[in-house]
Amino acid sequence: MTTTVYIAGAAMTSFGRHNDLSMQDLAQSAVVGALADADVSADRIQAMYNANVYGGMVLGQVLMRDLGITGPALYNVENACASGATAVHLACHALRLGVYETVLVWGVEKLTSLGGGTIPLQRNDYKTELYAAQGMTLPTVYAMRGTRYLHERNEKPEVLARVAVKNRTHGELNPLAQQRKAVSIDEVLQSRPVAEPLTLLQCCPSMVDGAAAVVLTTVRPSSARPAVRVLGSAVQSGLLEKGCDDILDAEITARTARLAYEGAGLGPRDVNVVELHDAFTIAELLYYEALGLAEPGEGAALLRSGATALGGRVPVNPSGGLLAKGHPLGATGVAQMVEIAWQLQSRAGKRQVEGARIGLTQCTGGGIAGVDHAASAVHVLGV
Amino acid sequence: MTTTVYIAGAAMTSFGRHNDLSMQDLAQSAVVGALADADVSADRIQAMYNANVYGGMVLGQVLMRDLGITGPALYNVENACASGATAVHLACHALRLGVYETVLVWGVEKLTSLGGGTIPLQRNDYKTELYAAQGMTLPTVYAMRGTRYLHERNEKPEVLARVAVKNRTHGELNPLAQQRKAVSIDEVLQSRPVAEPLTLLQCCPSMVDGAAAVVLTTVRPSSARPAVRVLGSAVQSGLLEKGCDDILDAEITARTARLAYEGAGLGPRDVNVVELHDAFTIAELLYYEALGLAEPGEGAALLRSGATALGGRVPVNPSGGLLAKGHPLGATGVAQMVEIAWQLQSRAGKRQVEGARIGLTQCTGGGIAGVDHAASAVHVLGV
Repeated sequence: MTTTVYIAGAAMTSFGRHNDLSMQDLAQSAVVGALADADVSADRIQAMYNANVYGGMVLGQVLMRDLGITGPALYNVENACASGATAVHLACHALRLGVYETVLVWGVEKLTSLGGGTIPLQRNDYKTELYAAQGMTLPTVYAMRGTRYLHERNEKPEVLARVAVKNRTHGELNPLAQQRKAVSIDEVLQSRPVAEPLTLLQCCPSMVDGAAAVVLTTVRPSSARPAVRVLGSAVQSGLLEKGCDDILDAEITARTARLAYEGAGLGPRDVNVVELHDAFTIAELLYYEALGLAEPGEGAALLRSGATALGGRVPVNPSGGLLAKGHPLGATGVAQMVEIAWQLQSRAGKRQVEGARIGLTQCTGGGIAGVDHAASAVHVLGV
Repeated sequence: MTTTVYIAGAAMTSFGRHNDLSMQDLAQSAVVGALADADVSADRIQAMYNANVYGGMVLGQVLMRDLGITGPALYNVENACASGATAVHLACHALRLGVYETVLVWGVEKLTSLGGGTIPLQRNDYKTELYAAQGMTLPTVYAMRGTRYLHERNEKPEVLARVAVKNRTHGELNPLAQQRKAVSIDEVLQSRPVAEPLTLLQCCPSMVDGAAAVVLTTVRPSSARPAVRVLGSAVQSGLLEKGCDDILDAEITARTARLAYEGAGLGPRDVNVVELHDAFTIAELLYYEALGLAEPGEGAALLRSGATALGGRVPVNPSGGLLAKGHPLGATGVAQMVEIAWQLQSRAGKRQVEGARIGLTQCTGGGIAGVDHAASAVHVLGV
């Protein structure tokens, strides 16, 4: 990237059940926080990118209605779980081109008001509905990957549980996480079955509300804090799984990561801290390899070595990840940026990764019923 | 704009009730048509921008699932009626930056399957719902503007009807329009009342399905046809109306047009053909002035002069506009580009504007219940 894009400010609400807050309250709270964090006044914002899945038409405009940020361009962006990261990616295009100097990106969702469960899609899509009606929802798609993983790698369910133990242990240190309670391997394995081999504590909570926001700018921040730069940014689409003959191949994620690393001129060995898309425990193990953090086949060994836990060589999901933090779809990708920005500026409190200088975020969204195409986003940030 | 963006191919489905076609069928039809029109193979597409309002999560990925365009980046973009134009605008950012060389942009909607009427928004937005419940839907918002217009300008409803007569006369020449029937002033005025002074024939049909697609590229097309360039592209947000004290001031549209003209280095007098957002007849009269086609207060005179009819100085909505063509939200902005591209290449059949070299498209979306912020997009195209 020739023009440098900085994350000048980062903020998020706590993730959880916010009965008393509207989607507008949540988004405005994150946006006001990010502006204050950046020490940027609202009148310097030239464009806004709203990431959301379930909020409806021109949501971004509605959210900002009472905040007085009226004039700038506003783009509503959706890419399922990767919505927030996709919004950041599109903002980087315009910033690097010089169309804008300073923009706001936020993600928001209020899933508790939708009642949970598999939320009906409004589209008239025979295939997706047929597969979903037969039980091919996301938990079952990931469960099949988990089963295949245990078979192919000659592993026991304990390895999956270790992901939940690690991330929920991290989450206990994050005051903004929805589930702040460390758990044992036995507790994970004995929690309610969802789709074998996945138990309840191996699935991220999706009955959750929250928002996250960042101020992105090409003007080098004058703050005394280290300036966080977006070094690489990639979005790709494709099948969530490569195909029925290899459901463990997260090809889309590997492809997106390769582009993001190329953009940054860095590789996986340069990364000190990662926030990745652990919607289900099995996902984190697959993404270790897709992101190049582990060699093919070595994901479980990387986990067991402790390298991806706080205190290890490359802590993964110090925030608690989606498993502990909760997964308000549109907000997740931006919240990952917020966490990495805080980590790189040594502002992550008890979950701080010491000396982190390069961080990575990864989201993969969509792929409902396995047959759908998915969206993938990877960003490399650095100080 | 330093790097030139070309519209290499343009195609659309007919707009109408397509009971037998899914949203996927419609989108693929337009996309295949645009690729063929551009003589570009699918493997040259590096990114895709899907514009849609009511289709649900990762719709773009689902739509392209069976078409074999799997790898590229895909962005789902929403900005109400301006969704399609916003998608083109975002694509131009990436193309001008050089991230991509050739991309696809499409818009699609299948509104007939939603049952019509004021479609419930899934968001929890007290203000919008309160106003809408009291009757402040889009037809009533525009009706109040119509009433105010007739009062302030000392006009009779006949001037509003003239817009419908003009555009529906154009629409009779467009085989892709939903309502292909010329009407008289009396027929317009005597059609069923919707919200005084607006009658049924003054409101665009929104029970409509359709899709439109363009191939955008920075590689100069080798076709013998004139190369259509995107000269100016602007998106802005703000109030649909400036405020209760001046509901005729389409400030957001004037501001967006100013930016688009600046980008193109052109002004309203350079424009030979216009596709604008005539969702209701009154809108076209207001936009004449907001776009600078008429001096303030001179919109009605411009209409009566015949300048904006086919054969006039600057034909507006030769396609029939939203009034005759129908308004499948996400598809509309892209369909406007398709019409202007065809006009500039002298491929518009019986509705051809002779010698057109510069065209303009304009959409304003959102503003539900009047109190909401809206999105606005203006593009200037040229050969």
